[in-house]
Amino acid sequence: MISDPVELRELCRSGEFISNTSNVCSGYVQANLIVLPKEAAADFEQLCFRNPVPCPLVGKTKVGDPTLVESPLIKSEVNIAKDIPRYVVYENGKYIEEKTDIANEWSNTHVGFLIGCSFSFENELIENGLTPKNVTLGRNVAMYRTTRLLDPAGIFTTATYVVSMRPYKETDISKVREITSQFWRFHGGPIAWGYEGAKALGITDLSKPDYGDAVDIADDEVPVFWGCGVTPQAVVEAAGSLIKGKTMAHAPGYLLITDVKDEEAKRFH
Amino acid sequence: MISDPVELRELCRSGEFISNTSNVCSGYVQANLIVLPKEAAADFEQLCFRNPVPCPLVGKTKVGDPTLVESPLIKSEVNIAKDIPRYVVYENGKYIEEKTDIANEWSNTHVGFLIGCSFSFENELIENGLTPKNVTLGRNVAMYRTTRLLDPAGIFTTATYVVSMRPYKETDISKVREITSQFWRFHGGPIAWGYEGAKALGITDLSKPDYGDAVDIADDEVPVFWGCGVTPQAVVEAAGSLIKGKTMAHAPGYLLITDVKDEEAKRFH
Repeated sequence: MISDPVELRELCRSGEFISNTSNVCSGYVQANLIVLPKEAAADFEQLCFRNPVPCPLVGKTKVGDPTLVESPLIKSEVNIAKDIPRYVVYENGKYIEEKTDIANEWSNTHVGFLIGCSFSFENELIENGLTPKNVTLGRNVAMYRTTRLLDPAGIFTTATYVVSMRPYKETDISKVREITSQFWRFHGGPIAWGYEGAKALGITDLSKPDYGDAVDIADDEVPVFWGCGVTPQAVVEAAGSLIKGKTMAHAPGYLLITDVKDEEAKRFH
Repeated sequence: MISDPVELRELCRSGEFISNTSNVCSGYVQANLIVLPKEAAADFEQLCFRNPVPCPLVGKTKVGDPTLVESPLIKSEVNIAKDIPRYVVYENGKYIEEKTDIANEWSNTHVGFLIGCSFSFENELIENGLTPKNVTLGRNVAMYRTTRLLDPAGIFTTATYVVSMRPYKETDISKVREITSQFWRFHGGPIAWGYEGAKALGITDLSKPDYGDAVDIADDEVPVFWGCGVTPQAVVEAAGSLIKGKTMAHAPGYLLITDVKDEEAKRFH
């Protein structure tokens, strides 16, 4: 089990680590990535400002350089075009392929954005006896597209939230909300819960997540939904050809391991 | 026509100015007010963080003192329990009455929050030849309750957006979006437009606003909707008896005139 973020990132860079990062380098904050042509960057930054629950911005690269990252989460060497185990590439908003690095795709006009990830609060849930089922089962978390619109910004006018789902007993929801809502920059508390919540989000079949792995919901449990850092990918797809050229992202569930502990993440507002 | 914010606030305090503030002290930023018992304050602050479009937080008082306001908008003497022309009082989340000051209601456990107001960008629209119809007609802006849920925080789980509406020609929307989106902390760009937008927000009758005054929408115009600082009042009503005791707010359209010019407001992020 690799426990050091720098070591893990090196293993990603050399192509030796290629798994999803659920429970990897346990205790360290993980971050989502989206890489956009600079022409779309200002609109995207405004979109994040307006929608901090699905798109909590926690870092940004210099234009054209994946090794220059301004983020309170990055404190040592990083190359975000290589240090994530798996990436997705889009062209004109359309899915093209998955890759283990995006060094060739990253041009001198690309800007990378780091977005908070709900894996950051899973440890705190575990410590409080509320281990998420995806952790117990060693699976990727279940993620769903929804019909909930983001508040628009610039060219991004039709995107909808992606959510992660963890099942909990009805009686635990209050505690689960309390624990996760401490992580303001990592999606915070859930945005909806229960089967009514699923319906309000336009999720019709919980057994078929759009990303990640399904988990069963027991009879005494209900689904609980959090904003999800895969949302920027739904944003890119919704924008389609309004984004000229290539955009790249982490593959859902395959995240950047940062240098900051979960405990510290609570302090980021 | 009074043009000085301090003078205007004094006239409110003495009960001499009792009108709505549309186009009053033109060029100065206006702010919405919500005053909550301190037990609800942390949840409300988190709600604002999660929903910056309807609830852009731009100031906060010390507990119990309406004259001690921490806000980049306030640079001289203020008593926000008296300096707004008209207030609304709620008890356990229910509307009680309107008053011209709330000095008697404000107890040593109350906290006041200032929320950005879309009046702050009307001047810039005027200067660009896109005068809002409510300004031309000398009316209060039309405001509507919607079915769009805020992302929940603490006790605030069921509140929905309130929006302001200004009609524009379809061909002007792009320019209107561009101008208003500069005012990040004052609701920014519109959240929806057109009759499809109205439908998505659950607004069924545009001729009957829930607050403010109706304006006709001409055949060559469509409705354009912005987040609105009356939302916190809908939040209070939705929370109902979860908020114990009195809460107070500005009366919709009757706002606090601040010491900062609209032009400067563009710089607040």
